[in-house]
Amino acid sequence: MGGTGHTRFGRLREGLVELLAAASREALGDGRRGVDALFLGTQGVPGCVNAGAKLADALGIEPVPAFRVETASSSGAAALHAAWCGVASGRYGRVLVAAGERMSGLDTPHATALLADVLHPYEVRAGATMPALAALAVREYMARYGLSREALSAVAVKNHANGVLNPLAHFQKSVTAEEVAAARPVATPLTLLDCAPLSDGACAAVLDGGAGDIVVAGIGAGTDALALHEREDPTTMGATRAAARAAYEMAHLTRKEVDVAEVHDAFTILEIIATEDVGLFGPGDGGRAVERGITAPGGALPVNPSGGLKARGHPVGASGLAQVVELARQLRGEAGKRQIDGASVGLAQSTGGFGSCNLVTLLRRAG
Amino acid sequence: MGGTGHTRFGRLREGLVELLAAASREALGDGRRGVDALFLGTQGVPGCVNAGAKLADALGIEPVPAFRVETASSSGAAALHAAWCGVASGRYGRVLVAAGERMSGLDTPHATALLADVLHPYEVRAGATMPALAALAVREYMARYGLSREALSAVAVKNHANGVLNPLAHFQKSVTAEEVAAARPVATPLTLLDCAPLSDGACAAVLDGGAGDIVVAGIGAGTDALALHEREDPTTMGATRAAARAAYEMAHLTRKEVDVAEVHDAFTILEIIATEDVGLFGPGDGGRAVERGITAPGGALPVNPSGGLKARGHPVGASGLAQVVELARQLRGEAGKRQIDGASVGLAQSTGGFGSCNLVTLLRRAG
Repeated sequence: MGGTGHTRFGRLREGLVELLAAASREALGDGRRGVDALFLGTQGVPGCVNAGAKLADALGIEPVPAFRVETASSSGAAALHAAWCGVASGRYGRVLVAAGERMSGLDTPHATALLADVLHPYEVRAGATMPALAALAVREYMARYGLSREALSAVAVKNHANGVLNPLAHFQKSVTAEEVAAARPVATPLTLLDCAPLSDGACAAVLDGGAGDIVVAGIGAGTDALALHEREDPTTMGATRAAARAAYEMAHLTRKEVDVAEVHDAFTILEIIATEDVGLFGPGDGGRAVERGITAPGGALPVNPSGGLKARGHPVGASGLAQVVELARQLRGEAGKRQIDGASVGLAQSTGGFGSCNLVTLLRRAG
Repeated sequence: MGGTGHTRFGRLREGLVELLAAASREALGDGRRGVDALFLGTQGVPGCVNAGAKLADALGIEPVPAFRVETASSSGAAALHAAWCGVASGRYGRVLVAAGERMSGLDTPHATALLADVLHPYEVRAGATMPALAALAVREYMARYGLSREALSAVAVKNHANGVLNPLAHFQKSVTAEEVAAARPVATPLTLLDCAPLSDGACAAVLDGGAGDIVVAGIGAGTDALALHEREDPTTMGATRAAARAAYEMAHLTRKEVDVAEVHDAFTILEIIATEDVGLFGPGDGGRAVERGITAPGGALPVNPSGGLKARGHPVGASGLAQVVELARQLRGEAGKRQIDGASVGLAQSTGGFGSCNLVTLLRRAG
C-alpha cells in the first residue's frame, strides 16, 4: 500500500467531488501521473451517478479508467476490495482508491429515508429505519446476554475519548456515560449518543501491487438475508462472519494475531456485535470487553482508536475506507496522539445496509 | 465464459431485482450453488442502493459476496470488467455478473433529468440533456465530414431490421428512412427514431476462470473530460479510444480480426462515432459504411446484430452487458435468425454518460 489521504470529517463546505479530489491528492502526493485506474466508493446519499468519471475529471487524470463500487454503507471497503482484485489480476499496476459522502445538507427525516433505501422494501413499508433495527438487535442482545445500558454507553464514551485525539474527527469532544444514557431517545434503548452522526468527508489510498511497507493481507466480503426478521439471530451478522473467515484464510492469519481493529459502530451495539463476529471476543463477551477497558487505547486489543463512526463521523460511503486509512497510519506509526504502539496487524470491519453486505480487510506491516 | 441470461427488454411488469434474478437464474442454470461472488451493474434510474445484496437475497445465495459497480450507462460493461479482475486475481473462481435497469415507470421529463445527472453540473445548469449533447456532436460531425440525414437514418433502419429478428428486443418492428427523418424532433437534427427508448430489462453471464468455449480476451476502460465543451473534438470519444487500445493490447488482437461488433447507439450518431473510435472505420467513414451495408448482417462487418440500444432497447445499466451476452451467443451459434455465421472474435463498446466513462470488451472463441 502506498500513500493515504483523509479530509476532516464533519459538516463541511465542499461538495462530494471536491472532497474526494482533496483526499486523492493527499494520497497521491507527487505521484499523480502514475495512476492506472481509479476505484471509487460512495453510497450516494443523495444519489451521485458517474462519480468515478467526475473524480477522474476533477483530478485531471482522464483517460484513466474509473469505476464506482457501491455496497451501501460499506462502499469504501468494497472499492478497496475491487481495487485489490484489479491489481492482483495484473490488469492494473498502481490504483487509486477513494471513498466519500456528502450528507450534511439533508434534513434528518430525508436522510433517514434515504439511508433506509438499503433495507428490504417490506421492512421499509412497515416503518423500519436503521436505528429501529439496531434497537431490535440491542433488545434481543440485552435479553440474551445481560448486556447493560452502562456497557453500551462505554462504547460511546471510549470512542468519543478517542475522537478527542483525532484532529480529523467530526466530534473532538468527550462524553460521559451519564450523558449517553440521558441523551434524547432515538429508538429505545438507543439514544442520540449511541448513534453515529451524518457527516461529510472523504479518504483515499493508493495500492501499488504489493510494494510498500503495508500489505493488504486479506480481503473478505459476505452477504446476508436482507430483512432482519428473516435471519436466525439478530445478535450476530452472518455477513461479517463470512467476510472475516475469507479474510483470515487469505491472509494466513488468525484472530489472535490482530493488534488493533476498526469496526462499524454506526450504533454502539454494532461495535460489540462486530468484535464478536470477527472472532475477537466470544458471543456475549463484547460488551464486557469494553467495560473492562480491553478495547481502550491502552487495553490488550484497542478497537476504533480513530474514534470510530461514532466520533470520527460517518460519511457513509467513506467509512469503510477511512478504517483502512486509520489502520495504515497506525501500523506506520503516523497516528499522532492516538498511536497504538507496536501494532503490526490491523483488522477493519465494515457493515453495508443493516448487515446485508459486509467486508473485512486485514493489513499487516511488511517484512 | 459460462452461461448467459437475458430477459425480454421493453416495458415490463417486474421490478429491477426480479428482472436481475430472472436473468441470473437463466445464466446459472443448474449451477446456482457454485457461485463465489456476484458483480452487479446498474446505473440506478431511479436510485437503487445496495442492489448487490438485494440480488444475492433474491437468489438465496447469501453469504456470497456481492458488489454493485456503476459507471452510468456503461455499468453493465463495468461490472463485467470488475468481475474479470475478481477471477483473474485468484480471489474468486466462478463469478456471476448481472446488469439491469427499470425505467418505464418514469415520465419522460423526470427520466431525462435523472439521466442528465451523469453530466457536468455546468452543462446541466445550462440546460444540457443527453439528446442535446448528441445533437451538438452530430451537427459538428455533419459539417466536418458531410454526413447526410440519410446516413443517420440508415443506422436506425438497420438496427430496427435487426430487432425484428431478436425475440428479446424492445422493438420488433422495422422502420423506413423516411419514417426516421419525419419522426417527432427531439434535438434537431435528431428525431425520436434516432434515440434509444427507455426500457426495462436485465441480463447476466457467468465467468469461470477461463473455462468454457468463449474467452474474455480483452477488457479496456477509459474516461474523458466530463463536459463536452472541454474536449478538443466532439466527433470522437477519447474514452472509447483509450478503452479500445487497452482491450486490443490485452487480447493481442487488432481491429482487423473483429468479426462482429455491438456498440452503444443510444443515438444513431453514436454508433457511427463508436465504430470509428474502436478503429473499425476511419474518421468520417462510419456513416458511409452504414449506407453501403458494410455493417448490415450480410455485410463485411456486422454491427449491432441484436438491434442495438436503438431496437433491443436501453435499460441503461443493462446495455453494456447485453452487448457481451449477444456476442457470446453469436460466437456460440445460438443467435437464431440473426446469426452471423463463422464469427470468432466479437467487440463490445459501451458508453457511460456522454462519453466520460466508456468500456470495450473483446470476446473470442476458444481453441
